[in-house]
Amino acid sequence: MNWSVANRRDVDFLLYEVLGAEDLLMRERFADHDRQSLDSALDLAFSISRDILFPNARKADAEEPYLEGDQVKVSPTAKAGVNAVVEAGFIAASGDFEDGGMQLPMVVTQACLGLVKGADPATVAYAMLTRAAANMLKAHASKEQQAKYMASMLEGRFFGTMCLSEPDVGSSLGDIKSSAVPHGDGSYRLRGNKMWISGADQDISENIIHLVLAKLPDAPAGARGLSLFIVPKWHVRDDGSLGERNDVRVVGLNHKLGYRATSNCALNFGESGNCIAYLVGKPHMGLAYMFHMMNEARVGVGTGSTMAGYAGYGEALRYAKERVQGRPLGAEPGSAPVPIINHPDVKRMLLQQKSYVEGGLALCLFGAFLIDEAATQEDQEQRETKEQILDVLTPIIKSWPAEYCLEANKLAMQVHGGYGYTRDFIVEKLYRDNRLNPIHEGTTWVQAQDFLGRKVRMAGGNPFHMLLDSIRCEIAAHEQLPQTSSAADALRTVLDQATDVIAEMAALQDAGKTEAALMNATNLLFAFGHIVIAWLWLWQSRVATAALEKSDVSDERNFYQGKLAAARYFFEFEMPQVSALLCPVAGGSTVSVEVTGDQL
Amino acid sequence: MNWSVANRRDVDFLLYEVLGAEDLLMRERFADHDRQSLDSALDLAFSISRDILFPNARKADAEEPYLEGDQVKVSPTAKAGVNAVVEAGFIAASGDFEDGGMQLPMVVTQACLGLVKGADPATVAYAMLTRAAANMLKAHASKEQQAKYMASMLEGRFFGTMCLSEPDVGSSLGDIKSSAVPHGDGSYRLRGNKMWISGADQDISENIIHLVLAKLPDAPAGARGLSLFIVPKWHVRDDGSLGERNDVRVVGLNHKLGYRATSNCALNFGESGNCIAYLVGKPHMGLAYMFHMMNEARVGVGTGSTMAGYAGYGEALRYAKERVQGRPLGAEPGSAPVPIINHPDVKRMLLQQKSYVEGGLALCLFGAFLIDEAATQEDQEQRETKEQILDVLTPIIKSWPAEYCLEANKLAMQVHGGYGYTRDFIVEKLYRDNRLNPIHEGTTWVQAQDFLGRKVRMAGGNPFHMLLDSIRCEIAAHEQLPQTSSAADALRTVLDQATDVIAEMAALQDAGKTEAALMNATNLLFAFGHIVIAWLWLWQSRVATAALEKSDVSDERNFYQGKLAAARYFFEFEMPQVSALLCPVAGGSTVSVEVTGDQL
Repeated sequence: MNWSVANRRDVDFLLYEVLGAEDLLMRERFADHDRQSLDSALDLAFSISRDILFPNARKADAEEPYLEGDQVKVSPTAKAGVNAVVEAGFIAASGDFEDGGMQLPMVVTQACLGLVKGADPATVAYAMLTRAAANMLKAHASKEQQAKYMASMLEGRFFGTMCLSEPDVGSSLGDIKSSAVPHGDGSYRLRGNKMWISGADQDISENIIHLVLAKLPDAPAGARGLSLFIVPKWHVRDDGSLGERNDVRVVGLNHKLGYRATSNCALNFGESGNCIAYLVGKPHMGLAYMFHMMNEARVGVGTGSTMAGYAGYGEALRYAKERVQGRPLGAEPGSAPVPIINHPDVKRMLLQQKSYVEGGLALCLFGAFLIDEAATQEDQEQRETKEQILDVLTPIIKSWPAEYCLEANKLAMQVHGGYGYTRDFIVEKLYRDNRLNPIHEGTTWVQAQDFLGRKVRMAGGNPFHMLLDSIRCEIAAHEQLPQTSSAADALRTVLDQATDVIAEMAALQDAGKTEAALMNATNLLFAFGHIVIAWLWLWQSRVATAALEKSDVSDERNFYQGKLAAARYFFEFEMPQVSALLCPVAGGSTVSVEVTGDQL
Repeated sequence: MNWSVANRRDVDFLLYEVLGAEDLLMRERFADHDRQSLDSALDLAFSISRDILFPNARKADAEEPYLEGDQVKVSPTAKAGVNAVVEAGFIAASGDFEDGGMQLPMVVTQACLGLVKGADPATVAYAMLTRAAANMLKAHASKEQQAKYMASMLEGRFFGTMCLSEPDVGSSLGDIKSSAVPHGDGSYRLRGNKMWISGADQDISENIIHLVLAKLPDAPAGARGLSLFIVPKWHVRDDGSLGERNDVRVVGLNHKLGYRATSNCALNFGESGNCIAYLVGKPHMGLAYMFHMMNEARVGVGTGSTMAGYAGYGEALRYAKERVQGRPLGAEPGSAPVPIINHPDVKRMLLQQKSYVEGGLALCLFGAFLIDEAATQEDQEQRETKEQILDVLTPIIKSWPAEYCLEANKLAMQVHGGYGYTRDFIVEKLYRDNRLNPIHEGTTWVQAQDFLGRKVRMAGGNPFHMLLDSIRCEIAAHEQLPQTSSAADALRTVLDQATDVIAEMAALQDAGKTEAALMNATNLLFAFGHIVIAWLWLWQSRVATAALEKSDVSDERNFYQGKLAAARYFFEFEMPQVSALLCPVAGGSTVSVEVTGDQL
């Protein structure tokens, strides 16, 4: 098996046979690439994952970062992992050639980043945060700021952070209290306490560039009053050398369930009144800038969740083939025990994982592909359309893998039995790591509100209906396919149910009944997530069915048959749950609104 | 709130208002007890949980047991926890007065043990294992063995273990390789390697009494050839003093996701050929003896899982009332933030937890009540009937709370947001601890096979039909109740669906088609588990509705209204999932059988 975190055959299938990523090579931005250069990037991601990150992930997890004075120290194991990702150039994988980037399509970039994240999300996080911060500067910072900070970040000499949350402000960023005051010389003095800052301090990179949300004195109230600032840990002189230490201090290190190799800190800015900050872009635009990067960030979280689930699936599959225990159902007690992969319930658990992780990967890569389309299609209208469809899908991409690929990790542990409960097997760590994903980058509830409250209604509901058209188009393509036509019918039925419910909720919201519209949004999000995954399984089935007709290579036939089996599992076991999830939404269950805190 | 792990009001409600546990006081065995003495035992369990176990649980978890030579050392924190439980006399809570026990009804015993387990399952495990081993000796050992070992175990001077699994033998005990050979003096020499032995070594008790499954030279093949042996760590002289060390050694300490304060070891018996063992009861009866204790052991696991979920629910509820963040749906951005318990999605997550943990507790206490009924009802036939209904319910009691109260722990963490992901909040530990429960004491799949493969068909299906009669009787009682009649109708519909499917599967199995009958047993187990919990929620609703008519005390009314809200949540959100779970079972989905390992 050519596996490391994910099955290489599957990554190729999704990229090239399903999404047709090679078509992107005709776009001007990717003209210098060919199939071979894309494959080389994937080869590199596979080899780093297999040779460096995955084998050291448990060790990096056990060697948790610690404070020495106010300096966070990171273990050499974790450093080696981050450095491998930095040296591969993955911070700038999708970046412009002129900035030293690889200018890879986003769909290939996300596949590569997903592979290294799946191998060890905690170690790799330092590089991913740097990537996100550098992208933000690329989009909104001045040329001077880019030259001074971004270039070193893309090289991996400086790392970046995102400082949003505060001790009392998690999901409601409008309540941020950090403030920045103009100093008269173009710089600002920033004060505030930030919480949950991943990579807030470490001893890996030469410098740390914090991107901080804070309010200017003349800021309007709420989320529209936030501005974005650069706060370097060490000041950077004009010649690029490091100057004095800035007034930003670690005040506490969080100890977490998982993601242990990632330092996560509370930071105090301006305790001594001398935290020098630089405004990025225009005043009061901070949250808009953040939102601008949000689709990509959330596709990144989805891909990370998926790949953690995928890595667990691979481990469970390997273990199930090796581990001998028990007998086939109905066999004589004295007969020889068999590898546990022969037990239907073990295969059911593996199919469930496979349907979640390969379905999740299809979803995330489709999302990444939309980013490419939105950035590089020639037609302006087409670009906007693709961006809007991505807007609609983003809350699902963020939340569905976070919830269901965590479930996959739970099942991977179950396949391992007692062994899986020990820290000797990596499924234990994956289960801990992946639990973060329904919480950070917007909780599942935040995504549910975003999907039902905003995304299905944006631009008059047109983008949502374009997504529905894509799904219906796939359903129609199965009318003549005997193997999948009844699955397509089933999808049509629940899709109609879901769209009816969504229309009702949108009407309620248009009528100002926000609470009634959104009170059961989480169930709707899960239901629609399953519909999207079912659509992607239909799509994969169609491609696999066509390929099977042409292939007589045994490994290839097994691969495609496996796709059909996972799709069948999803339609037979998972699809019935969509109607069940929709029930309380359609029925307008008010129990969550009506119950009082005193009754709970 | 009188909470510690669980809501005292709820425990009283289930024991006295729902189950009518006071009726047990009329039985001869409990003649020396009255309501006050039962309440005193509960008071004690609540106070130990609140004052000792729960406050120290995170510390005990962080101070993992370690090896010093071949001796396992346990932290003083964990020792203090175990000793509190021992000193309270809970090892012998249900034991006979003549053995120094409290002779409490099992339903009160399980409530007490559940409370201490929910507060810290890992610490309390040492005492629980000792209790299980002592009960085994009470049932099957000779008077001499009882005097020599059991008495000290009930006092908590000696602790006990259960040595079943071996490195290659988890769920399939018939493959056990450990062997015992008669030595000619009534004792045996035992050899073998045991794995996953909880409490296998520690430095808390004076001695450790291992109960070990092994094969005699003339043993028949498979599970029917296992005998049960006593293997003391230190030999016990006739005067009760400790003699030489026996030939049993710790060869490795497992490091686990959770349950960290419980030492869990691999043990080698007879490395030097001198492991002296004593046969318990008759040869080849070991597994029968184990099965004899299994119902109670599995009720214990169910109660422990439930209480871990319940403890998380209590923490989430408290946090949701304290934590101020965000605004009501549709409120102005500038309005004041509110405690998060005002958000419908937070209340939904709390209702989901409440419906799981209070439903699970009703189930487990009902199971414990059946143990009392089977032990103390005057009519012999009634005793057998109750035992058989318990037999049918046991796989559900073992698995439903293990799966769904783990889900409750996941939700408790979600309510806490980022804070819940840190080790500063106990919800993180509860989530790790509870993950064990779907694995040990028979995995969920083992329970599914047991339920559909054996229990619904035992004794010609009569016990299963008696259980169905109880459920139908409750449904009938709601025909005239306007608040719950439609819920009762919904339950009747899915109950009919489920019994049809079960009858089909039983017919397949009678026809020798074991694989076709059992391949989707896990889905059936979950579906029937939800039906049983729905039944118990109908029951609780009926009691609460009647009580509401009589009560005008505000706290009491809130309590009963809360019961009705949780029942409503369960019927509106959870019941639709039963049909969805049954779909692939009823449809005879063969995908798990047909997919091959090469396709996965």
